[in-house]
Amino acid sequence: MATDTAVPVSAPGYVQPEVDVPALTGLLDGTYAEVRNLVRTNLAEYASVLDEADELGIDDFRERVRDIVVEMAATGQTGMGFPQEYGGGGDIGASIAAFETLAFGDLSVLVKVGVQFGLFGGAILQLGTKAHHDAYLQDLVTGKLMGCFAMTETGHGSNVQALGTVATYDVATQEFVITTHGDQARKDYIGNAAKHAELAVVFAQLEVGGTSEGVHAFVVPIRKGTTVLDGVRVEDDGRKMGLNGVDNGRLWFDGVRVPREALLNRFADVSPEGVYSSSIDNPNRRFFTMLGTLVQGRVCVGGAGINASKVALAIATKYAVRRRQFEAASDTEEQLLLDYGMHQRRLLPLIARTYALHFAQDVVRTQLHDVLSSESTEGESEIARRELEGRAAGTKALGTWHATRTIQECREACGGAGYLAVNRFAALKADSDIFTTFEGDNHVLLQLVAKGLLTDYASEFEDMDQLGMVRFVTNLAVETVIERTSAHKLFERVKDLLPGGDEWDQEAGLLDSEYQLAMLRFREEHMLSGVARRLKRGIDRKLNPGVVFSEVQDHVIGAANAHVERLVLEAFVERLRDLPADAPEGNRVALGLLCDLFALSTIEADRAWFMEHGRLTVQRSKAISREVNSLCRKIRPIAVDLVDAWGVPDAMLRSPDLVG
Amino acid sequence: MATDTAVPVSAPGYVQPEVDVPALTGLLDGTYAEVRNLVRTNLAEYASVLDEADELGIDDFRERVRDIVVEMAATGQTGMGFPQEYGGGGDIGASIAAFETLAFGDLSVLVKVGVQFGLFGGAILQLGTKAHHDAYLQDLVTGKLMGCFAMTETGHGSNVQALGTVATYDVATQEFVITTHGDQARKDYIGNAAKHAELAVVFAQLEVGGTSEGVHAFVVPIRKGTTVLDGVRVEDDGRKMGLNGVDNGRLWFDGVRVPREALLNRFADVSPEGVYSSSIDNPNRRFFTMLGTLVQGRVCVGGAGINASKVALAIATKYAVRRRQFEAASDTEEQLLLDYGMHQRRLLPLIARTYALHFAQDVVRTQLHDVLSSESTEGESEIARRELEGRAAGTKALGTWHATRTIQECREACGGAGYLAVNRFAALKADSDIFTTFEGDNHVLLQLVAKGLLTDYASEFEDMDQLGMVRFVTNLAVETVIERTSAHKLFERVKDLLPGGDEWDQEAGLLDSEYQLAMLRFREEHMLSGVARRLKRGIDRKLNPGVVFSEVQDHVIGAANAHVERLVLEAFVERLRDLPADAPEGNRVALGLLCDLFALSTIEADRAWFMEHGRLTVQRSKAISREVNSLCRKIRPIAVDLVDAWGVPDAMLRSPDLVG
Repeated sequence: MATDTAVPVSAPGYVQPEVDVPALTGLLDGTYAEVRNLVRTNLAEYASVLDEADELGIDDFRERVRDIVVEMAATGQTGMGFPQEYGGGGDIGASIAAFETLAFGDLSVLVKVGVQFGLFGGAILQLGTKAHHDAYLQDLVTGKLMGCFAMTETGHGSNVQALGTVATYDVATQEFVITTHGDQARKDYIGNAAKHAELAVVFAQLEVGGTSEGVHAFVVPIRKGTTVLDGVRVEDDGRKMGLNGVDNGRLWFDGVRVPREALLNRFADVSPEGVYSSSIDNPNRRFFTMLGTLVQGRVCVGGAGINASKVALAIATKYAVRRRQFEAASDTEEQLLLDYGMHQRRLLPLIARTYALHFAQDVVRTQLHDVLSSESTEGESEIARRELEGRAAGTKALGTWHATRTIQECREACGGAGYLAVNRFAALKADSDIFTTFEGDNHVLLQLVAKGLLTDYASEFEDMDQLGMVRFVTNLAVETVIERTSAHKLFERVKDLLPGGDEWDQEAGLLDSEYQLAMLRFREEHMLSGVARRLKRGIDRKLNPGVVFSEVQDHVIGAANAHVERLVLEAFVERLRDLPADAPEGNRVALGLLCDLFALSTIEADRAWFMEHGRLTVQRSKAISREVNSLCRKIRPIAVDLVDAWGVPDAMLRSPDLVG
Repeated sequence: MATDTAVPVSAPGYVQPEVDVPALTGLLDGTYAEVRNLVRTNLAEYASVLDEADELGIDDFRERVRDIVVEMAATGQTGMGFPQEYGGGGDIGASIAAFETLAFGDLSVLVKVGVQFGLFGGAILQLGTKAHHDAYLQDLVTGKLMGCFAMTETGHGSNVQALGTVATYDVATQEFVITTHGDQARKDYIGNAAKHAELAVVFAQLEVGGTSEGVHAFVVPIRKGTTVLDGVRVEDDGRKMGLNGVDNGRLWFDGVRVPREALLNRFADVSPEGVYSSSIDNPNRRFFTMLGTLVQGRVCVGGAGINASKVALAIATKYAVRRRQFEAASDTEEQLLLDYGMHQRRLLPLIARTYALHFAQDVVRTQLHDVLSSESTEGESEIARRELEGRAAGTKALGTWHATRTIQECREACGGAGYLAVNRFAALKADSDIFTTFEGDNHVLLQLVAKGLLTDYASEFEDMDQLGMVRFVTNLAVETVIERTSAHKLFERVKDLLPGGDEWDQEAGLLDSEYQLAMLRFREEHMLSGVARRLKRGIDRKLNPGVVFSEVQDHVIGAANAHVERLVLEAFVERLRDLPADAPEGNRVALGLLCDLFALSTIEADRAWFMEHGRLTVQRSKAISREVNSLCRKIRPIAVDLVDAWGVPDAMLRSPDLVG
């Protein structure tokens, strides 16, 4: 199924691989082929929504999206993550896979599903106890009961611990009184809030007997049918850049009373007499344990970003083997876009990175499934949870930035036709833009990742706590001190990072995956220890922590990025090593090319750093750029097969001017 | 007017500059302050269009935009570039300045103005002769006569020489017969075509007496009022990602007859008897001379991209000194976003690059004005035209990519609020997206730039022509052989590129503008000669030209980018050197900081290349990164002043949630 190319690869002895597309799709779909195919079928069934997004007014489109979500729910697709006794599928991993696949289609439908079943349903499931499950799960799984997840406020999105909404326990009536203090404390950007939610899970500062116990979640009715309840004020967020099928809105609470049982009390409770209790003593730790159960949302958004990228790349690649412009190599025929070296450079490394992120997403999805399905001891589960949180944050950040970058590059690679709304990019670009922000701003998420890794250095910083240095590194997202995580194991492993000694990396083959991994591991380790050293220096010079953090922040982000890219490459390499024995040889070769292209284009993009830190000579740096070009030429003939293997339904490629 | 900062610059002896904002605005507005202020007034007058873009349906919005364009025309703003005898302002430079300023506002209005007065009006003015001017200019300047510029076809956008529309001369009736041969030859994405244009300037292959004379332009009536004329078929391009106030459409011509006088005959004509004649013998040269007169469009779009970036940066900067998140440096107060080092890194180099591009735009606007207003000899004017074309193409490419990148970064830096349509980014992002494609795809434009520079190497490649190597380098946009241009002078100048000898650049001060310029000049020269060497090698190995070009294409693009960045830095440095003696000292210092930040962040972004080519040691590379951080800290307290100096009207910052 290889496509023709005017620019053959001339390397002697090189044999062009033949890709077995269905087998490759099977490998990519993995365990969840069945639910993915269910979603593909549903997407094709509701393909008209791609047109309706352009044609309907905002009110009608919101109703249409709601209807589709409810109808899809009836197929079982959206409830995979809920217990079977409440009508769910009892399979967290399958629910993530379903969500990822849904990202091939209209993203308002995707986000509405995420709001209803992931955020709202997930909060009830993970923060609530049996009474809440019994009361709500059955109806929310069918979509009969719509809800929203009211965490973010106008004044606080990233720093959720500082939310301004207050829930005061009134012992006389055994109720909580929910109040919005000022417009900065109004809930904002809340999906489902403007129109459809009858219930809200509201995050508020819990006050009991005059003491603030920190942020907790409460179930608060906000609507009966379409009528907003007393004490609640709703404002529509109005038109957005995209996702206009989702009704985002603002909420104010003016002394709204809910019964004591409205507290989602899995981790903390208030007795009728007004005594607060929690199984987790440390308030910080309690807060981050609660937040941690919601990690699923990040795993979902990261996977959605990766799959939205696939749609854009499939369109741009198919267009590039169809569109000709300029007689570059012939007097009589114009040349296909994908036969231009620059065009290969623009698209093919993005295809390789998409494959890499796909396999990294497999890892984080599996970890999420294992953690949330686990019966393991508190200690084990704590370690696994920490690892999951870091990996989910990192994959989400890289996956969604990748989507923004890829969709933009693909639009430009499709020229003026790419700008018409009838061809998919307008919606893809506008709808996916917010992925880098919601479920955690990407920069803040990478700081969270770095923090998790840096706390392993904490013991080396004896003065750290007393000088308050910990605050600005650790205060950003999760609790102060964590157990030794798997990140720590990394630091032991990197001692034999260069298997053949300090000069080995100057001689190893560029296409040796051990070499590629060693490079990314070295970078990560060096960047992390660099950040730690800079912090230590700040302590020693007794500087204002804010100044020190501000100066080191770009290194913090860089170290986190290096960590996540290492995880992504490991995921790809491990998947390659574990390919089933009966995998078609052509697919093995093709995946090998993609893995090399991802690894080397990643090193190439940061080759300045590697040269600055003695791990790349000038000659070797140039050799890597040449190898990237060579890999692009090898992949070019199988590029269409590689995007076909993602199994994006034809109807979702809706681009009549681009792919016919 | 310096704003407070929690992160003071601690460099000893450093004195924070005080910016005189009105004086800086005066410097930036320059010669054209008056017309810029007229446009600012008009923008404020019609500020409601920013809301109407969201609120009105596509049909109503198109009519509204048309009305605004016509009303603005009545103020003289849009006709500045036309001769005074036809109601214009007789000042090309002023017309560009007006257009640039209009980019602060709704971009549908901008593009409609560009279509009507720049493309349609510009073609009549530049390609037509007195009869055409007398017939059309007066009415098109007022907007009474609307027209469109029908060049691009579905099948050909970049390779305009291969257009498929044909105009055959019928000697019997002394008419041209215009015919669209197949859907690939239909005119596409044509602004004003779907609804408003009564006339079209149609680019078609001229056939006279069975001979094809290449692409020429014809005035073709397509509508009378709202009625489409016989033989013309119109299809609406429908909704686009943005710019939905502009009615883009498709046109087919089925043997449409126009009189012999419909040929815009400044450069070529057909006699009544059917004899073709032209003042330019070489057909290639004739084609590119005609196209060259339309360079004004590229100058306009580049300037618009730069000014759209200013709007985004003004909003994001003002938000970043207002929004607080996380108690990073204090127990009691959250920290301003702009006091975070990473946030400074995200925004401040973009502000510096915007200033640099602004000054580069001043240069290209002045060149355009001089060339189009010039009475100079054919030879002089030819050289000036070549230089102008390269500079216009390069500034357009860098200015519009800068807009895409800047608007995206600013949206992300404003979080969820940045995603709401009520805050400016949704429109800015969607409307400006196509800037990288229209008026020349940016990659193709950079190839045009590189070609202009490379032809200076042509004499060194003796075998070039006979092997057809020229084709793929030179065939891309302009004619094969050009006179020695100013680019050639560069190559002589770079011989004394390192004023202090080969080691000088290792010792020179990083903040020495001679050092910064030398670095960018060296990069450009080295990249260009590298491309030339690779091409020569391809010749010597007798490879297929298409293969050779494909392999070298990323270097071609890189060399062109290096050339344009050098021009941009030169423009900034020269402006700094030529500051009037009475310029406020604070402004001089502030501009110096910005120039250094632009230069060093540009070198930093490509520091791998400089290390690979022996122009940066590891130590010096790291020192540049530290200096970039230090410059960011120095600029942070004056950041708001620097964006205020651009003079974006307050109403155009329409972002109630972000800047109040």
